[in-house]
Parts: sequence; structure tokens; C-alpha cells
Amino acid sequence: MRTHFDCFPCFLRQALDAIRLVNLDNKVQEQLFRDVLRWMSEMDLSLPPPVITQLIHRRIRDLSGQADPYLLIKKEQNQLARVLLGEMSEQIKNADDPLEMAIRLAIAGNVIDMGVKGKVTEEELRNSLGQALIQPIWGNIDAFRQKVKQADSILYLADNAGEIVFDRLLIQALAPARVSVAVRGGPVINDATWEDALAVGIGEVAELIDNGSDAPGTVLSDCSDDFCARFASADLVIAKGQGNVETLSQAPREIFFLFKVKCDVIAGHTGIPLGTHALLHYNGMPSQEGK
Amino acid sequence: MRTHFDCFPCFLRQALDAIRLVNLDNKVQEQLFRDVLRWMSEMDLSLPPPVITQLIHRRIRDLSGQADPYLLIKKEQNQLARVLLGEMSEQIKNADDPLEMAIRLAIAGNVIDMGVKGKVTEEELRNSLGQALIQPIWGNIDAFRQKVKQADSILYLADNAGEIVFDRLLIQALAPARVSVAVRGGPVINDATWEDALAVGIGEVAELIDNGSDAPGTVLSDCSDDFCARFASADLVIAKGQGNVETLSQAPREIFFLFKVKCDVIAGHTGIPLGTHALLHYNGMPSQEGK
Repeated sequence: MRTHFDCFPCFLRQALDAIRLVNLDNKVQEQLFRDVLRWMSEMDLSLPPPVITQLIHRRIRDLSGQADPYLLIKKEQNQLARVLLGEMSEQIKNADDPLEMAIRLAIAGNVIDMGVKGKVTEEELRNSLGQALIQPIWGNIDAFRQKVKQADSILYLADNAGEIVFDRLLIQALAPARVSVAVRGGPVINDATWEDALAVGIGEVAELIDNGSDAPGTVLSDCSDDFCARFASADLVIAKGQGNVETLSQAPREIFFLFKVKCDVIAGHTGIPLGTHALLHYNGMPSQEGK
Repeated sequence: MRTHFDCFPCFLRQALDAIRLVNLDNKVQEQLFRDVLRWMSEMDLSLPPPVITQLIHRRIRDLSGQADPYLLIKKEQNQLARVLLGEMSEQIKNADDPLEMAIRLAIAGNVIDMGVKGKVTEEELRNSLGQALIQPIWGNIDAFRQKVKQADSILYLADNAGEIVFDRLLIQALAPARVSVAVRGGPVINDATWEDALAVGIGEVAELIDNGSDAPGTVLSDCSDDFCARFASADLVIAKGQGNVETLSQAPREIFFLFKVKCDVIAGHTGIPLGTHALLHYNGMPSQEGK
């Protein structure tokens, strides 16, 4: 997906959040902010939004010397989501359709997104869960169910810390022996990394891999060869969150995207209304994108 | 007031709104957007925010060949506010303290601001009026009342179209023979110009002047000599809206600012909470600013 003009105010807000999170001298902060504006002014708009976000956050990590500025926030988000784990497990267990309930909760977990909104409270998370139970899911669950039934191998692309607690429940509902869960290859914003996946017990229920990239999405040209091979060969790919929609919307294979529509740009791009809980079945296109 | 990093997402959103309002070729739009980002990356942060907004909107007018892209919007806003004029006049007439009621309504009118928010509906305007009647005014009305009583000449710096209908009511309550109303010297966003003031009948109740500048605020170094002389010599200056707070917060004279606190930057700068209806008494400082 191309970057839209409307992404730029959001880039700036994200950059400001991150700049303030790390301990930088005022002059360095200002220079960094000016660099970000200059990159934005020169940006190739045919690239997806996470490419510039990746660049911004790399520079912030370099300048601050902090390898993972969001480390504490991610720990808190994992902790926050884990508090609700028992409750959610019960909801899935008691549901008429446990797979649908697990999908609903996994989409609800996508509210934990520092990229779109600055922070998430327990109240917002509980509201999001409440919403998930009543709001219709946009998309064809039966097509998804059918694919899940047929797949020998499933690649699950995780999104954010905290959210992966919710992902774990869906993965458990998918017969996890055939599932590989891919996290980001390095820290970026609050995106889930290997440590977050281990912290919430994903490693106990499915195979864990990383994509080799520190982009807040799945930029195939920046991912490891191993990841790209897995991505190409999996019978079913499930991708969580807007970052994955933005970076994989022209990927050369079928993908099921699970996400909440959080901004007008994604609403416009997908044709799905803002706020919708979506299971978007993408059929793949014979693009030149990818490695 | 200095420009803060947090102003930049807002500059971008404003620029996007304006770029979309005028009829520009996609390529020209993109180049303009890139120019705006580059200016921002090079901006002197010691200048107040309206200085860059002025630059952006000048360029948009130049490139589009539209001398006043917000002309229709301003007409609509004047019309919208005029619908409420009779109702508001009655409220002032029947109030225990007509001056306070007129102040309340004049601050409420400050909700009509394209710079901070994209558009204003009649519902929002009515809500704002409802709020104005119950919400306490932050500031010392008695000090203001005292100054009004003593002043032989009052200079009233208007802010936006639509809002000036509300200003007219306050001006009428001030014994308008001694009042001069200054509008912007040229079109910028939805700021009130000479035409708007005439359209809502300001010219019938007070002397009308303009400040000679097309900045969305009062940048004294950019205003006409005549305006600056009036500004320096008036017994009382009343300035409406955030743009005037931003540009006159170090002015070398006493000013009463009437505005609604609409963003965190102004809240931080003034120490007045977001959303507050404020009558800020500024005592002036012996600054080098101004002409």
C-alpha cells in the first residue's frame, strides 16, 4: 500500500511520542525531529507507511543508545493483557462457536497499538473486549474456517505486545502443532518481539520464529530469507494488525488479515469502515513485490 | 510564543485540509506538501506557529490562483452564526449581567476555528453556546470590567468568520462608539477579513480597520504601521482566539485575550486547562517584539 499524505501527521505524532520516551538532550531531540521532517519531505510515496516508521525508530534507537525504548511499556502491556487471559479462555470455552470467539478476541486485542494511539488503559482494553463480543465481524468467517480445516501449515504474523496474549488464544484454537508464529526481528515501537512472545507463553503452544526485520509490519524485501520461504510455503497465512495490511496488501499470496480499522487511510484503502473489526480475505496478486 | 514540536502534526493537517480545498493537480499537490514538510524541517522554532501557517497558506493561494480558498466556507459560517444572532441578543438582554453574558458568548464563538478543527456544524455551535452559559470563565472579569469602564478607545482584534457575529454582540455591549475592530489584512484560512466584518454588520456598530497582514494571528512585525500605532495607543486591547495568543504573548502592552483553550500546546503555554473558556489578562512585557 502506498503512503498517503494523511499518514504524515501520524508519523510525526509517533515520532514525538518516541522522542519523548528516550532520554535525549533538547538539541538532539530537535535535530532528530528536523531529520524526520526532512525524510518525510523526500519520501517515496509508493512505499508503505511502515518503511518510514522503521527509519524513524531506528534513528531514535541509535541516537538514544536505547536498544528498545518501549521495553517497559511492552512488559506492562503483556501484563495488562495477561490479567484478562483466564476470563477470555473461559469465554472461548463456553462459546457456541469457539473459533469465532477466538477470532473476535484476537481482533479486539489489536486495540493495543502505540503506532496509532499513544497508550492503552485496562478500561479501553475491557471496552474493546466488550465491543468484540457484540460487534459483527466484517468478512467471511466460513471461508477462513474452511482454509483452517485444510491447512497443514499455518504462519501467524503477530503484531503488538499485549495483543499477542489474545493471539495465543486464537493460536490454541487453531490446533497449534501446525502453527508457526512470527514476531518482528527487532524492537520497533511496541511491536511484539521474541521476548514478548516468550513472556506470554507463545513458545509453549506453537513454534516461534522471527521475520528478521525491524519494520512495524512485514516488509518482505527487508525480511530474512528463512522467513520469506516460510511465508511463501505456508498453507495459510494469518496476519494481525494494520502494519501488516499496509505492508502486505500487494503480497504475492493469499492472506487472511485480522485487524481493527483504526484510521481513515486504512478505511479508504480497504473500503472497510473506520472502527470495524475485520477478517479480510486477500487473494494475492502476481506482484513483483517480495524477495 | 515559540512553536512547539506538537504544533507540527497540526500544521500538516491544516495544510492537507487547504490543499484539498483548492483545485490542484496531483503532482502540484504533492510538491506543495513536500515544500511544507521542508519548511517545517527548517523552521525557526522561536517564531510563533502562525508564521509558518501564513507561509503555507500564501503558497496554496499562489499555486491555486484562488485568492481566498475559504471564501464559501466563511460565508457559510457567517450565515450559520447569524441564524443564532436573535437568540443570543435576547440572552444578553435578559441576563443579570449583560457584559458577562456577552463575554461568554464571544468566547463560545471561538469554537468556529478551521485552524484547530476541520469544520464546525450547527450542532457543535449550539453545544458550544450551551457550554458557554454554564461553564465558569477562567479569569478576572472584574478587572476587565474596570478597564472597559475607564477606556476611551478600545481595539478589538477579531479572529474567525462566523465568530465575528458573536464578537459583534460583545462590541455592542462595550459602547461601540469608542471601539475599533481589526480584521486580518488578507484572507488566510477562515480568519475574518473586511468582507466578513461587513457581511455580519460590524461596520454598522463600530469602526472597522484591518491589520495589513495575512497571518492567522497578529504578527506585529508583519502588520501595517497604521495598525501598529492603533495597537500601541488604544486604552484597551481585546484579542480573540488562539492565533492572537500565540502571536501576542510577548507583546509590549496590556491585552485581554478571550479564547477557548483548544490544544495542549496552548494549555501548556498559558497554564490554563484544555477546553477552558478563558479571559486572560496579560500585563505586557518590555519586549523587543513588535514594530
